[in-house]
Amino acid sequence: MMSGKWHQHVLRVHYKETDQMAVVHHANYVSWFEIGRTEMMRDLGIAYRDMEALGLLLPVLDIKIEYHAPARYDDCIAVYTKLTDYSAVRLQYHYDIRRINKTSTYKYFKEPEGELLASGYTLHMWLNKQWRPARLDRLAPDIYESLEQMVSKK
Amino acid sequence: MMSGKWHQHVLRVHYKETDQMAVVHHANYVSWFEIGRTEMMRDLGIAYRDMEALGLLLPVLDIKIEYHAPARYDDCIAVYTKLTDYSAVRLQYHYDIRRINKTSTYKYFKEPEGELLASGYTLHMWLNKQWRPARLDRLAPDIYESLEQMVSKK
Amino acid sequence: MMSGKWHQHVLRVHYKETDQMAVVHHANYVSWFEIGRTEMMRDLGIAYRDMEALGLLLPVLDIKIEYHAPARYDDCIAVYTKLTDYSAVRLQYHYDIRRINKTSTYKYFKEPEGELLASGYTLHMWLNKQWRPARLDRLAPDIYESLEQMVSKK
Amino acid sequence: MMSGKWHQHVLRVHYKETDQMAVVHHANYVSWFEIGRTEMMRDLGIAYRDMEALGLLLPVLDIKIEYHAPARYDDCIAVYTKLTDYSAVRLQYHYDIRRINKTSTYKYFKEPEGELLASGYTLHMWLNKQWRPARLDRLAPDIYESLEQMVSKK
Repeated sequence: MMSGKWHQHVLRVHYKETDQMAVVHHANYVSWFEIGRTEMMRDLGIAYRDMEALGLLLPVLDIKIEYHAPARYDDCIAVYTKLTDYSAVRLQYHYDIRRINKTSTYKYFKEPEGELLASGYTLHMWLNKQWRPARLDRLAPDIYESLEQMVSKK
Repeated sequence: MMSGKWHQHVLRVHYKETDQMAVVHHANYVSWFEIGRTEMMRDLGIAYRDMEALGLLLPVLDIKIEYHAPARYDDCIAVYTKLTDYSAVRLQYHYDIRRINKTSTYKYFKEPEGELLASGYTLHMWLNKQWRPARLDRLAPDIYESLEQMVSKK
Repeated sequence: MMSGKWHQHVLRVHYKETDQMAVVHHANYVSWFEIGRTEMMRDLGIAYRDMEALGLLLPVLDIKIEYHAPARYDDCIAVYTKLTDYSAVRLQYHYDIRRINKTSTYKYFKEPEGELLASGYTLHMWLNKQWRPARLDRLAPDIYESLEQMVSKK
Repeated sequence: MMSGKWHQHVLRVHYKETDQMAVVHHANYVSWFEIGRTEMMRDLGIAYRDMEALGLLLPVLDIKIEYHAPARYDDCIAVYTKLTDYSAVRLQYHYDIRRINKTSTYKYFKEPEGELLASGYTLHMWLNKQWRPARLDRLAPDIYESLEQMVSKK
């Protein structure tokens, strides 16, 4: 059961992501959040590509990032993602970006491991192809149920 | 006097900034914020390049973005920037991203014009080259004074 | 008459484009080429956005870049673009990237000015929305004629 | 022995890499080439990060890319890299980008597998931190010898 756990996806910092302060430029964390939630959903059997094929878009409404320490070139970065809220029309994810400098054999963690580099969240809204609000429970009830099982129950 | 006013910088959406939803990918707004604050500072006689040459870094501590409507390819985008808080160790900027679809002859606006696409803020901290906190009032008192004149006095 | 001349578009190097060698990462020149040809076409009354609305795509078949000297943060860069070959199915552009560190009041140059940083070309093919080859002379004869007038006649 | 063989590195196409033609924007292949050569070198025990720590830079002099078919969102892409030429002052790599839509358990291939999307090469030059030409055989003879063993001997 992954309920309330953090999904971990490990990636490597690329040269292009650095800037002349010799750290990762802060804009790249936005992409890392995106990779984190995509890989968590894939692991749950929900490919975002398939959702788009169903005519469902999931744009970002809000993003917040707090930067604690800089990531550097060639670091192994763990992107931890947790679905923290959902309804028929919205989703919220939280993220932790940590330096681990190793690959990892686990995918779900009760507590994220590694040196904390950044944390934040994104809020999303389901839209149809005309960019009008869509209800997930009606358009894709099976995905809606999968999300129900995923969300942290405190 | 620009005290309390928004600095406007106009840019054009490039093809590379779009994604397959046929809108600007949300990560690009982070770069637009950066361009906005850089151009506002330049207009005030403070080139960020020169600050780095003095050994002063100004990394981002926090970023928040709210997305209201999507920017699209080839749109003319106005990035409105305002310095909203400062001290000897920190700075905060607020931003408004708007679609104007024209160039503009004014640089400072009491109220931003155009269709609102996104808004947000960034919080920054002065660091020295060793990434230790730095006091701007001691290291660059002239820049510190310029900032004082810029900040909104409500 | 711009026949055989180079179109100049001036842009500023952004922080995000630098890497930890403290120069512009080489991938960004691909985007600068794209901006150069887009702005040259716009100046000739051909907005690429309108061509896509007509169902015409113009993907890149080939790109070649030679790097001579690095661009740096905050430099003023002139992107010089020239349409060097065309037919009903293909287009070729050549580019010169130069550091000028000033804005400029001219748009067309017989000889590009400034310190040479990179040069190269792109080759493109007209496609329809199904990604099948398209003939520009049949689908948009007015654009085809505009291109004829633009190409260098040596 | 990997002499004359192609090193394979598999990556996933991210949403941010798509554009509004619903394909990967052509600039991203430049980064994929960079990832390919970095991972091949790492596999040979040469971390580019360590070379920079020794004061050795390896900027790109030339890049050429031919695009054959578009990569799409969420595709599994194999980046095949081969060191095709080297001297004490220069390196050349060739690349093949292919869609494989699976992960892979092999790292070296006599013939690349998958649908060909793009191919190309990069040419590099060793520089010291002052951006002056450097001789690898003098500054890092062990790395120079590793390269010798890697290059295709036809």
